[in-house]
Amino acid sequence: MTATADATILPAHYTEMTSLLREASTLGSVGALLGWDQETYMPPGAGRARAEQSSVIARLTHEKRTDPRLGELIRACEEDPEISDPSSETGANIRCIRRDFDKATKVPGDLVAELARTGSEAQDLWKHAREKSDFAAFAPALTKMLDLTRRKAECLGVTSGGELYDALLDEYEPDARASEIEAVFLPLRDRLSAFIADIRENGTPPRVDFTRREVPVEKQHAFGRAVVSALGFDFGAGRLDTTTHPFCSGMAAGDTRLTTRYAPDNFADALSSTMHEAGHGLYEQGLPKSGPFAGTPLADDVSLGIHESQSRMWENSVGRSRAFWAWALPLANRHFGGVFDDIDVDTMVPAMNTCTPSLIRVESDEPTYNLHVMIRFGLERSMIKGELAVADLPGAWNEQYKRLLGVDVPDDRRGCLQDVHWSFGLIGYFPTYSLGNLYAAQLWETINEQIPDLDARMERGEFGALLGWLRENIHKHGRRYTARELCERATGKALSADPLMRHLERRVRPAYGL
Amino acid sequence: MTATADATILPAHYTEMTSLLREASTLGSVGALLGWDQETYMPPGAGRARAEQSSVIARLTHEKRTDPRLGELIRACEEDPEISDPSSETGANIRCIRRDFDKATKVPGDLVAELARTGSEAQDLWKHAREKSDFAAFAPALTKMLDLTRRKAECLGVTSGGELYDALLDEYEPDARASEIEAVFLPLRDRLSAFIADIRENGTPPRVDFTRREVPVEKQHAFGRAVVSALGFDFGAGRLDTTTHPFCSGMAAGDTRLTTRYAPDNFADALSSTMHEAGHGLYEQGLPKSGPFAGTPLADDVSLGIHESQSRMWENSVGRSRAFWAWALPLANRHFGGVFDDIDVDTMVPAMNTCTPSLIRVESDEPTYNLHVMIRFGLERSMIKGELAVADLPGAWNEQYKRLLGVDVPDDRRGCLQDVHWSFGLIGYFPTYSLGNLYAAQLWETINEQIPDLDARMERGEFGALLGWLRENIHKHGRRYTARELCERATGKALSADPLMRHLERRVRPAYGL
Repeated sequence: MTATADATILPAHYTEMTSLLREASTLGSVGALLGWDQETYMPPGAGRARAEQSSVIARLTHEKRTDPRLGELIRACEEDPEISDPSSETGANIRCIRRDFDKATKVPGDLVAELARTGSEAQDLWKHAREKSDFAAFAPALTKMLDLTRRKAECLGVTSGGELYDALLDEYEPDARASEIEAVFLPLRDRLSAFIADIRENGTPPRVDFTRREVPVEKQHAFGRAVVSALGFDFGAGRLDTTTHPFCSGMAAGDTRLTTRYAPDNFADALSSTMHEAGHGLYEQGLPKSGPFAGTPLADDVSLGIHESQSRMWENSVGRSRAFWAWALPLANRHFGGVFDDIDVDTMVPAMNTCTPSLIRVESDEPTYNLHVMIRFGLERSMIKGELAVADLPGAWNEQYKRLLGVDVPDDRRGCLQDVHWSFGLIGYFPTYSLGNLYAAQLWETINEQIPDLDARMERGEFGALLGWLRENIHKHGRRYTARELCERATGKALSADPLMRHLERRVRPAYGL
Repeated sequence: MTATADATILPAHYTEMTSLLREASTLGSVGALLGWDQETYMPPGAGRARAEQSSVIARLTHEKRTDPRLGELIRACEEDPEISDPSSETGANIRCIRRDFDKATKVPGDLVAELARTGSEAQDLWKHAREKSDFAAFAPALTKMLDLTRRKAECLGVTSGGELYDALLDEYEPDARASEIEAVFLPLRDRLSAFIADIRENGTPPRVDFTRREVPVEKQHAFGRAVVSALGFDFGAGRLDTTTHPFCSGMAAGDTRLTTRYAPDNFADALSSTMHEAGHGLYEQGLPKSGPFAGTPLADDVSLGIHESQSRMWENSVGRSRAFWAWALPLANRHFGGVFDDIDVDTMVPAMNTCTPSLIRVESDEPTYNLHVMIRFGLERSMIKGELAVADLPGAWNEQYKRLLGVDVPDDRRGCLQDVHWSFGLIGYFPTYSLGNLYAAQLWETINEQIPDLDARMERGEFGALLGWLRENIHKHGRRYTARELCERATGKALSADPLMRHLERRVRPAYGL
């Protein structure tokens, strides 16, 4: 970091401002622990108390983030030419702090607390509704969360020419707009559909039967830990636990928690999930959380699209590559007692690169994944617009799955109840998954140009050069640059769908003998 | 609960007061989760961040507890004859709320935050120092904690004729005084010493060799869960995890978390620890935390002495009885695959009632346990008085263990570093352990009078009548009565050491063939 980050020479208004932010960030990290615990170890009877705890912490965090004193200090910093130069680190930090403050002060504290409390309750209801595939049991909670979320969007305001949904999207992917996303998604959807049709019609599906062989959950867990350690995840500053809907919580400096889930007859699904969350976790561990920018935007992730590019890169670009499996297959056999002894790399890798339209997003393969995301993007945007009623969601969901993926949804558990997001009010979040895939593919092409022997390294189980590149080009910058700028600085090009399509062609066609 | 607890007819100042308290209580419960997590699942690298989180939450909780508005509302309640009658539930609640408020407002928020932060750091240092048996590595942190704790005691103030230590003791055992405790402890110490000497000189030690047979930790865990479920602990509203220094956290309504520890060659120690914490947990689950008194003193435990009476009763009065083992031994054999198939109840029970002076308090047997406590009481009282320097603690500790228990302390890990309490600043806490034993023995005599077939019930694994008695006579009252009043209401007598001595005679003498 530059000399401007040295607290000893920074003006008092800057240090006071960052110390207020650090306190807000600490409270936010406490909220993250409440969330992690709720998804991992909390007893079922604690639901009500947890909702109350989450609500109190959310309200207090919001109070800190909207403290009028913070507003005064931001203004003083903006007016101080020594630190506000937008090309400096402090200047970039001040710009982000202003942005966050303006957004936060638009949403009343009561609404923030209500969103947290209702979200915590709705999440509990969703869990039970999902188990019983009972959409009607979840619908009232979803309606309530949608109302609250729409109220939040109205508080944040619509920019000229935009729509209400943009205000929500902006929380996760700053400065993105629904119309721009649609403009990227529609042609991509057509290219993906054509690609999938071509594979399905002309290719020969690879063998996948062996991927359903039984592997005890404890052995899968040990294998997953070994892989993730090799990728560079620091277990001295993190954990790996099990949950229903896997996530990563980079809750505080030195505390990054991955979660995953296991099925005895689907080791590959668990490994994907573990490597995906590890990708998020490696980003969290690479952010400058304990340096001079602790608790400020420069220690934060830039956008969910970039966050997802990290998870998808480790999950797919690495985790479905021939080079990775040359190293990982013998390791798996050591852990699994030779369950795949009769399977060679040339048999394993095609099975990891299938193209089979299916019901569950988080279990779907790489080519079809983005179609799952696009369906959700369309549906949530319609719900926010008021064009789709909650009661009609299951029907609309099922119709689109039939039309775009050609699958019949047998029940809501495997349909519109499968994801946790909406219960928490995370609307505007889904499109960042596909943005992540686009960023990942583009970064991956650049990385392979700059580390030409990457495959050879991965075959030896060496991921340090790759992680080092990501640390240097992505992680360490926090929010210093926008997602768009970061991508252009790292790859030299604006974001394009071409690398993703090239990547899929390169991986999937050979798996189908094309 | 009485009609006065019905919020609809309660005056506005009372409901506003309790809603402020509920918020403070919710924040306190968040602090409890931070503490539980630190002792169970937190990655080692998160120590610094956790200290910061604990400090922020402690400070905010303190702010809520000392809110001047709360002071105004308490005064309004005290002046309201409709609710302040000391014999009513609301009146008892108001009296406790006044007491807590007066105490809380005496300690500045900065000191509270510093105690929380330093305690969290010191606790981490203690953990490492204990592992390496390196007292010097912990001494500076202990000195700091003692200074802060002494400052806290000075803020709380000394009552006339009392000493600084009383102010600390009062936090854990309201209205108790060091001089009174000493007056109970000194004669009890002499009676125990005489009793132990008699057993050691004249008795024949029972067989204990078989208690060190190997039992895999997972099997011990399943057995412990089965026992604790049978006692009545609700796992739908609680958990059982492992940690270094077992504790129970009744952190919120529906959320009571037990912790224990296992050694493959000491199943009895783990079972004791699990039943002990379950005793605390059953009390927590029996407190009226989600009724009209949620978040107020009437939903809280009355004192640590009473709390400990619950844990010690389940651990010892139940867990070392012949009736318990008539049921538990076959259960253990089913879980352990017959490890104790050759051991009958008449062999098992004496082994659970030994009398062997030893090094570690939490592993010590029932007759010697109180001597461990008395040593700590004397040492911490001397340290607070300034008569014992931190540097001299190991020497003083070892000298007293030699003199009172006749054992040589080989290293500080098994000496003055064995307990977590002092690192957290929990000074004045230890004597409540022995008060708990005294209360437990006295309650146990009354319970056996009132449930004459208790043994027969326990032999069938039925603990409902016992738990029901405790719920009715202890748990449901929260802080409605003082510990002394509660004991007298339940047993009809003032607290006496006689029941404890009778209990030990009855249990230990036969084990030694006397």
